[in-house]
Amino acid sequence: MNLVLLLPEDFISEQHVRLTGRRLEHIVNVHRAKLGDTLRVGVLNEKVGRGLITALDNQTVEIEVSLEQEPPPKLPLTIVVALPRPKVLNRVIASATCLGASRMIILNAWKVEKSYWKSLRLSEANLLHQRIIGLEQAGDTVLPKLYLARFFAPFVQNELPVIASQTLRLVAHPLAIVPCPACIIEPCTLVIGPEGGFIPNEIQALEKIGFEPVSLGTRTLRTETAMAALIGRLYL
Amino acid sequence: MNLVLLLPEDFISEQHVRLTGRRLEHIVNVHRAKLGDTLRVGVLNEKVGRGLITALDNQTVEIEVSLEQEPPPKLPLTIVVALPRPKVLNRVIASATCLGASRMIILNAWKVEKSYWKSLRLSEANLLHQRIIGLEQAGDTVLPKLYLARFFAPFVQNELPVIASQTLRLVAHPLAIVPCPACIIEPCTLVIGPEGGFIPNEIQALEKIGFEPVSLGTRTLRTETAMAALIGRLYL
Repeated sequence: MNLVLLLPEDFISEQHVRLTGRRLEHIVNVHRAKLGDTLRVGVLNEKVGRGLITALDNQTVEIEVSLEQEPPPKLPLTIVVALPRPKVLNRVIASATCLGASRMIILNAWKVEKSYWKSLRLSEANLLHQRIIGLEQAGDTVLPKLYLARFFAPFVQNELPVIASQTLRLVAHPLAIVPCPACIIEPCTLVIGPEGGFIPNEIQALEKIGFEPVSLGTRTLRTETAMAALIGRLYL
Repeated sequence: MNLVLLLPEDFISEQHVRLTGRRLEHIVNVHRAKLGDTLRVGVLNEKVGRGLITALDNQTVEIEVSLEQEPPPKLPLTIVVALPRPKVLNRVIASATCLGASRMIILNAWKVEKSYWKSLRLSEANLLHQRIIGLEQAGDTVLPKLYLARFFAPFVQNELPVIASQTLRLVAHPLAIVPCPACIIEPCTLVIGPEGGFIPNEIQALEKIGFEPVSLGTRTLRTETAMAALIGRLYL
């Protein structure tokens, strides 16, 4: 937590917040902060700044906040990722948020197990929580958009062409020969398949709407690792 | 597990192995393999190929192996990484292995908590196991070298100059202005600090032996995410 992310309901006056639970624990146990210490804080979808601890006990912490700076800019990047195993999903969402993606879409694919769509980790509350974890890590406040696309064909035919319009369109594909481009500045829509890859029909559907298959080398990477490697290569 | 990694002691004859425990469970529960199915296999530090399941019950699986292909080439990359939190260490080691680093060094730094060095995750057995997980994910067989460097100053003064000799020397640093280079082909030694960064003295010691501080943008990434982003940018 490199930034304590504040929500509108945390405010008890114009410049003061009162926190309990997870954030209090983190401030006490990880930051080991004391009365009078300052912390980096930010308000969800607003500015970042400094927070002065004005009261602290076992139950609550009160912080006086002053917000002056803009959060770090987002990347002009939409990540479309095939739903990974539930175990991996949280880290994928937090990482994509932390790396600065503007928008994320979790997509179905032939090789995604149907049972994954029943995971409790796809609840609204968890999808929000994982993005908040990513923002806190990155020192950012602006929540990336996140959508679920449970049906591959209608999403790719009807919605993705609009989403990806006027962006560089790439799909990471183990069988591709062209390496992924590096150090781009233009907006990009990057599609990442399931660990077993997209099936030929799926790749063809993506190619048909202008997505170029690009390679990430000969090693099979976990979704989370592949995503960080691709974003590092494209933008950082 | 995109490759079932075999050890010399698994062989019951020249071309047959018998497996129990973790690998058996994975073959049954994740691959859902049956008698007569073939799997991708490889022998530690040797070739990769196909394995035919010739016997399978609750206790053991027997596989007839034929090895013809070389494992994927390693990157000419040494990763030197400040010891992360124990919770993160396993993933950092597995990821670096999976991404293809030839060698890893786990380094002390001012902002590494002393207690981290007492973690059971630094046992020989766990350090081997995490590299095996990374090899199984990547479809590789060649174990990257891994060393622990518990004392920053003597390591950087005496050992690192030899290790990094004739390689591109980079240290990822939040305050650096120069962006990390992309798409290199030459050998590289890449140093990644603790999440709080190296202190000025440490950066100076690294600069003194030819390491250039490079930036990864304005966001604070977790060690594992930063590592994948940097490797994706440098090599993939």
